Amino acid sequence: MTDRSTTTATAVARPGGTALLADPAARPVQPPTRGRRGLGVGEVRLDGGFWGDLQETNARATIDHCEQWMERLGWIASFDAVAHGTTGGHRPGWQFSDSEVYKLLEAMAWELARSDEAALAARYDRLVERVAAAQDDDGYLNTCFGHAGQPGRWTDLERGHELYCVGHLLQAAVARVRTAGEDLLVQVARRAADLVCREFGPDGRAGICGHPEIEVGLAELGRALGEPRYTEQARVFVERRGHGTLAPIPLLSPAYFQDDVPVREADVWRGHAVRALYLAAGAVDVAVDTGDDELLGAVVRQWERTVERRTYLTGGMGSRHQDEGFGDDWELPADRAYCETCAGIASAMVSWRLYLATGDVRYADLMERTYLNVVATSPRADGRAFFYANPLQQRVAGQDVAADAENPRAEGGVRAPWFDVSCCPTNVARTLASWQAYVASVDGDELSLLQHAACDVDVALDAGGRLAVRVTTEYPADGVVRVEVLDAPGREVALRLRVPSWAHGATLTGPDGVARLVAPGWAEVRGALGAGDVVVLDLPVAPRLTWPDPRIDAVRGCVAVERGPVVLCLESVDLPAGVTVDDVRVDPGVAPRPHEDGAVVRATVVAHRTDRSSLPYPSAPPTPAPRDEVDLVLVPYHRWAERGPSTMRVFLPTL
Amino acid sequence: MTDRSTTTATAVARPGGTALLADPAARPVQPPTRGRRGLGVGEVRLDGGFWGDLQETNARATIDHCEQWMERLGWIASFDAVAHGTTGGHRPGWQFSDSEVYKLLEAMAWELARSDEAALAARYDRLVERVAAAQDDDGYLNTCFGHAGQPGRWTDLERGHELYCVGHLLQAAVARVRTAGEDLLVQVARRAADLVCREFGPDGRAGICGHPEIEVGLAELGRALGEPRYTEQARVFVERRGHGTLAPIPLLSPAYFQDDVPVREADVWRGHAVRALYLAAGAVDVAVDTGDDELLGAVVRQWERTVERRTYLTGGMGSRHQDEGFGDDWELPADRAYCETCAGIASAMVSWRLYLATGDVRYADLMERTYLNVVATSPRADGRAFFYANPLQQRVAGQDVAADAENPRAEGGVRAPWFDVSCCPTNVARTLASWQAYVASVDGDELSLLQHAACDVDVALDAGGRLAVRVTTEYPADGVVRVEVLDAPGREVALRLRVPSWAHGATLTGPDGVARLVAPGWAEVRGALGAGDVVVLDLPVAPRLTWPDPRIDAVRGCVAVERGPVVLCLESVDLPAGVTVDDVRVDPGVAPRPHEDGAVVRATVVAHRTDRSSLPYPSAPPTPAPRDEVDLVLVPYHRWAERGPSTMRVFLPTL
Repeated sequence: MTDRSTTTATAVARPGGTALLADPAARPVQPPTRGRRGLGVGEVRLDGGFWGDLQETNARATIDHCEQWMERLGWIASFDAVAHGTTGGHRPGWQFSDSEVYKLLEAMAWELARSDEAALAARYDRLVERVAAAQDDDGYLNTCFGHAGQPGRWTDLERGHELYCVGHLLQAAVARVRTAGEDLLVQVARRAADLVCREFGPDGRAGICGHPEIEVGLAELGRALGEPRYTEQARVFVERRGHGTLAPIPLLSPAYFQDDVPVREADVWRGHAVRALYLAAGAVDVAVDTGDDELLGAVVRQWERTVERRTYLTGGMGSRHQDEGFGDDWELPADRAYCETCAGIASAMVSWRLYLATGDVRYADLMERTYLNVVATSPRADGRAFFYANPLQQRVAGQDVAADAENPRAEGGVRAPWFDVSCCPTNVARTLASWQAYVASVDGDELSLLQHAACDVDVALDAGGRLAVRVTTEYPADGVVRVEVLDAPGREVALRLRVPSWAHGATLTGPDGVARLVAPGWAEVRGALGAGDVVVLDLPVAPRLTWPDPRIDAVRGCVAVERGPVVLCLESVDLPAGVTVDDVRVDPGVAPRPHEDGAVVRATVVAHRTDRSSLPYPSAPPTPAPRDEVDLVLVPYHRWAERGPSTMRVFLPTL
Repeated sequence: MTDRSTTTATAVARPGGTALLADPAARPVQPPTRGRRGLGVGEVRLDGGFWGDLQETNARATIDHCEQWMERLGWIASFDAVAHGTTGGHRPGWQFSDSEVYKLLEAMAWELARSDEAALAARYDRLVERVAAAQDDDGYLNTCFGHAGQPGRWTDLERGHELYCVGHLLQAAVARVRTAGEDLLVQVARRAADLVCREFGPDGRAGICGHPEIEVGLAELGRALGEPRYTEQARVFVERRGHGTLAPIPLLSPAYFQDDVPVREADVWRGHAVRALYLAAGAVDVAVDTGDDELLGAVVRQWERTVERRTYLTGGMGSRHQDEGFGDDWELPADRAYCETCAGIASAMVSWRLYLATGDVRYADLMERTYLNVVATSPRADGRAFFYANPLQQRVAGQDVAADAENPRAEGGVRAPWFDVSCCPTNVARTLASWQAYVASVDGDELSLLQHAACDVDVALDAGGRLAVRVTTEYPADGVVRVEVLDAPGREVALRLRVPSWAHGATLTGPDGVARLVAPGWAEVRGALGAGDVVVLDLPVAPRLTWPDPRIDAVRGCVAVERGPVVLCLESVDLPAGVTVDDVRVDPGVAPRPHEDGAVVRATVVAHRTDRSSLPYPSAPPTPAPRDEVDLVLVPYHRWAERGPSTMRVFLPTL
């Protein structure tokens, strides 16, 4: 924010007169299919509660925080350098720092659609101007390549992230054009997309980007602007991948950037997790837009095997630090779990697209798990520090990070204000700013509530009339979800509430006041609902034990405790003096008891041998000696390390 | 081997007339301390058996293999490019490829001391000439830096490996000067060491190398040439480290190259394992030469904590692929164990130095474990392919590597002929070529047999006379170690045999024919031994179960099976059809039975659930259904993947 005051602001004219939000149904993903659709950011308003509070903090702190950091580090000034022709000196940040600015713009665009805050609007406009000023006449836009003293355009597709950056630019433009109409950012994006199509079209350079993202960007901008060329280009990129198109990167396999097997032939996600998931999201977009059921089926197949064998209890994906990637089947170490925040966001992007394409509730289940236990774990309560990796075990307490220090490492055990590679904060910002778009879907006269959050929903039905409901809930802390009808068209409509897969014994009380058991899947009320009708879903969120599949070697002999959709953990700060998280043996025969929004479990504290002169592999079973029986408080994993650095475990040994 | 025929060979004159081996007591590590010393490469001759065969294969195949690969890849030709002033074009290999040539020269030097093969001698001489021709007038020698079209000297101490390469040059020269006297290689090394002292001395550049190695090289060359300046320079390098002397490498912590904490203050090894261990070896050398007991104590302390908490059952060190490094305490995943072959070699280097400094048998125990289960695991039976990483579990069978293909990855699950980073093959070569130097030590009239191998030992005692014994044994396949005295001085002498820490129930039969139980540690016979006297140590090598410390999360609920000093494993090729290594549950109540040089264990085969639509975390204990009872053959881990790609486990679940 150093030279902000000297910048001449030229506010871009708002389209649509006084209505800021051009279309209440505006949303990040709008496939052209008929029938089921997600609700728009103007059709759902979060009303406090778990997600509403996160969104408010994002609006109040995180967006500003990200902008300040990128200004301070000079990542935004890199655009000025291109505009002023002063490139060639020191350029701060990695090659892909432009993308962080675009993700911030996307976050601002969604937030403006929600809050219409004049100060934010002005900041958005000024930032767009600085970005736009860096665009070359032919549409090329990148601050790291193609200008004086820089490597030439497209000279390092493997690592340069040029197309990746464009992809994020396009996603930002999608947010803007749908919520506010065509503005300078959208014009910039259009020119950039046109250049990509010219350069990389079927008759152009047969290249792809080392990091997928351009595919989702092109597909969605094509939808938003009605430009089938963009979708076609996305298709070309998806199909080109998997044939060894990219040059190998030393010490990494082609699977790192999914260039080992074509998307439609692959059986499982592999390599760099965010890359794999962004690519899958783009592939679903292409499959839906082109009616390519084989391609859609391939992504469904990959989702299934990955969820069965390569996914953490938290929904986190990515088992390896080395390449920020998936491991082999069943390779799910708790301590070295990478579970990058961005991979959680990307996983939800894929699942959302698959839900829209298939209507299968399991995708919404995984989204909830991932949102609550990965995405919500990242930001600190004040919205100004973040986890990058989200391991399920912390062996050594981290060290506090200074508020003004860039964290070079993804594994500090504490939330950090910013990172050397800082993809996660802006990804959190854009996700939270548009999060209400994933709460519900509508299909004809059927409204489906997918994520249980306190909110108001108001949707215009295709057949005429509106369906408006108010959802009141303390979920996930409490299992009661109350839905009051505020407005309905008077004819038969359906209201469906998702019953998560773990919720055995849930009940639904309809407007008639009669409660009935509902099985995991959908709880449905169908009829001529009217204003004042109330439906209550009661989900059993009492804490429960969860076991890992025996093929997950890393947590054999352990249990975890979940409370509703929330994974709990044991933190060292909750232990009696002299006891460490490794000294605890949980008795799986004793049911965990509710305790605030966590649980209490019964455990034995054991004493370990100490022998510094020998290997830790004795010739007799080294059963640790029991010392004490204790009750241990477990807290939501998404809140761990909020009370200072700590050691932590999600999976607790039983033996 | 492309332009070999056009090279004019100028054989270096052999010193010492007809005797090739200048000093039978020549050995890699010769501290100036009185008393205990290792035996020289001319004082022990391996006589077939496990280690003799490995050494023969190394001589017959591996040395030639390494030379051919480096000729073919142009790593040797890089020296020619410097000599001919043609640098600046494409230089093949990584910055540190020179070091591989030096390690090959070291291997050749030790092998020549053993076999005096004329053809090898000529190859050695030609290779030394090519290396020498690349040395600058002031002693600088590096093919990657400092010449036309290259970065300047010492411009990238963090990553450039210039001092590291010099360190390996010096170790090669140590081998040569001790076994053959001063030749061209020794002259080259002397000039290079002198330059390092001028450049990095107390009044010079306050730098250190990103990869320790110069320290051991300088210390030993100082000993070999009687140049205390070199030892002093080694001391300076050791002391400079740990103060943030090196610039940080993005995404790596200063612990990566042990620049986080001074050696004398550190409590445990951390960061890149080979770096940590080479540094520790150099620190012991410095401590011994300068009488610095605090520094020696620091390394002992680091050894103890690392062995207790960061060492695999195989003796392998390094739990992380990301930085080829140590993990946190108790972070010992079987599947992602890195256990680099070079780290095993480096660990033995440290333990050998600590054994010489302290006489503590535990260091020899760890050396045996590491030699048999890490170092011996690396080379394929034909000596022409190698493991780089040595994981304790292989989840997915590797793919055969073509005989002429460089393997870009350290984790293929098969031995590969060469690697992109190919430190291990030449390290194996130099280690096996000098391996007999680690078999025994002598202290006054006491001969200690540390590694049980078929060999002839013939040592001149300080007090006069010789002690010669012949060791006959099939160890480790069999536990009987027979020692026959061939020559003795007639006065009281002591013969000690190491009893490994696992060998409970071992017996020693003295020349009187009486067998007595001996505890782990030393089994000793003391008296006026004479020719024909026979001592027999009988070690109980029956297979036995081994348990991991309960703090090693990765293998909780598992057992391993060892047979004497050899770690066994279950390989998929030994399983009945339709059974995978993950389907097996071993019954720890049934003792494993001997089977050839492996074992047979009783196990239950279980069936796992299959559900591709959900997470692998059920709400009830997912006890797999028992299918069958089977007897499973386990084989020595060091031989795994010799019968083609396979999946493999060292630790076997019991539940």
